[in-house]
Amino acid sequence: MAQAAAHPAPTGQTTSRPATSGPATLARAAVGESEFDRDTAVVRREEGVYDAELSAGWTIIHAVNGGYLLALLGRVLGDALPHPDPFSVTAHYLTASVPGPAVIRTEVVRAGRTLSTGQATLYQYAEDGSEVARIRVLATYGDLDAVTDEVRTTALPPAIPPLDQCLGTEAGGDVIPGSSAITERLDIRLDPATVGWALGKPSGKGEMRGWFGLADGRDPDPLSVLLAVDALPPTSFELGLKGWTPTVELTVHVRCRPAPGPLRVAITTRNLAGGFLEEDAEVWDSADRLVAQSRQLARAPRG
Amino acid sequence: MAQAAAHPAPTGQTTSRPATSGPATLARAAVGESEFDRDTAVVRREEGVYDAELSAGWTIIHAVNGGYLLALLGRVLGDALPHPDPFSVTAHYLTASVPGPAVIRTEVVRAGRTLSTGQATLYQYAEDGSEVARIRVLATYGDLDAVTDEVRTTALPPAIPPLDQCLGTEAGGDVIPGSSAITERLDIRLDPATVGWALGKPSGKGEMRGWFGLADGRDPDPLSVLLAVDALPPTSFELGLKGWTPTVELTVHVRCRPAPGPLRVAITTRNLAGGFLEEDAEVWDSADRLVAQSRQLARAPRG
Repeated sequence: MAQAAAHPAPTGQTTSRPATSGPATLARAAVGESEFDRDTAVVRREEGVYDAELSAGWTIIHAVNGGYLLALLGRVLGDALPHPDPFSVTAHYLTASVPGPAVIRTEVVRAGRTLSTGQATLYQYAEDGSEVARIRVLATYGDLDAVTDEVRTTALPPAIPPLDQCLGTEAGGDVIPGSSAITERLDIRLDPATVGWALGKPSGKGEMRGWFGLADGRDPDPLSVLLAVDALPPTSFELGLKGWTPTVELTVHVRCRPAPGPLRVAITTRNLAGGFLEEDAEVWDSADRLVAQSRQLARAPRG
Repeated sequence: MAQAAAHPAPTGQTTSRPATSGPATLARAAVGESEFDRDTAVVRREEGVYDAELSAGWTIIHAVNGGYLLALLGRVLGDALPHPDPFSVTAHYLTASVPGPAVIRTEVVRAGRTLSTGQATLYQYAEDGSEVARIRVLATYGDLDAVTDEVRTTALPPAIPPLDQCLGTEAGGDVIPGSSAITERLDIRLDPATVGWALGKPSGKGEMRGWFGLADGRDPDPLSVLLAVDALPPTSFELGLKGWTPTVELTVHVRCRPAPGPLRVAITTRNLAGGFLEEDAEVWDSADRLVAQSRQLARAPRG
């Protein structure tokens, strides 16, 4: 397993890129050969037990991003369960993960004909070597290639301006102090209507919208969708709140396999109350299909 | 523990009621003394293991209602965890529960200062006595009395006509064939705008709205809220689909302790695709507060 500090260049691809480059300007990393794939890779130690190395490349300040962790656990369950694709994944974030080694212990709860349900818990190691639970995931998997083509949706894609009219997250560099390595690995372009926070003028609306891609141009798949739902700045920034918004629980429904090309992500918070808020995210693909719906419960920043 | 077939009258209360009676016309059953409380009661067999009797009184046709099961499991976790109230509860429905004995095995995943996380799995017994998993729940609990009073919400209560202008579910008796015992235990009054299905004229919109109460007048609490999010007819009826909409996964966030009086529940489906649909529910209390948000992933009926 690759260590977090050593990212070998994928065969036939380049990983060098300017920080402001977009997916359209890059030689694209293929699915399976991207930095995202290497950093979410796991090694099966024995039946149901996997070793992983949480990469420092997906941190916000010092914390490992929750969407990256979800994608890694999603990959584990795709191996441990008889079905390949996440249909419904719920994660409870127990303690803050840090870059370094981790072990994931899984359980097949039920293996059905079209759906199977499993559980995965990610542990890291205390100084005395004991295991500390970081995240517990309960998920139902299926085969997205086996779902019917029927679509009767009333949902409409979010009104996000074209990619070249949206703004890179570097605009918010002074708002998120400290090292945020993850921003180098993502190509996020925010809707100008939801970047007031970066200019000291938050809209007051609980909305965050933007284009989402991986910086090395890798096309989306169900695993990167698990990352996408928790990769934009928190809606609380546009509510005028600074500081950390730690996720308590996050559930994602992946509804179809995403088409190639950048995703659009729209996040809404309607109820900030009692020190908690929800973030509802929709993910749309380049074919204008609703790929995923997610909701998280998070602690509201005190700021 | 009371058997499903024997519901003793609660002390000082009456359970006799006409099928069409509403909460305003009844002597109210107190929280803790209601049929709902008796039928979700469990007996601790040993540390972390609970015995229950799934009541036939909460079935739709032959299946035990998912919201009733969620409430029962919610009661178990409130006993097993150091915190009393469900904040985020996710249930994966594995196999169909039937009235009769069940055992619930729990695990404390993490006990924190303000939140704790636990798991519960409900099993029933196969003919050979082996345990068959019905539902697995992963949940984070806290203390709703300890959350701050701060409310900064943009969510608005659903536009539902006054209770006396809404319609009892008996209107749909011919649409849900067979015995639906649960309708006698609930006092649901549907918004006339979402009962077209019962008259053979579904609206085509994925919406279902109504007032929710327990038929014996018991006031709502966080456990009955877990029931409320899965108690209305499915939105698929208004989409013109008949038949069963089995829940794959259901997550509820309880955001505050409900005020006394009937609840309003509004359910929306935006994406029916690939043989699955989501149901988003909001629960509002008599004080116009957003008490809970839920989302479920369900299989779409074939009809």
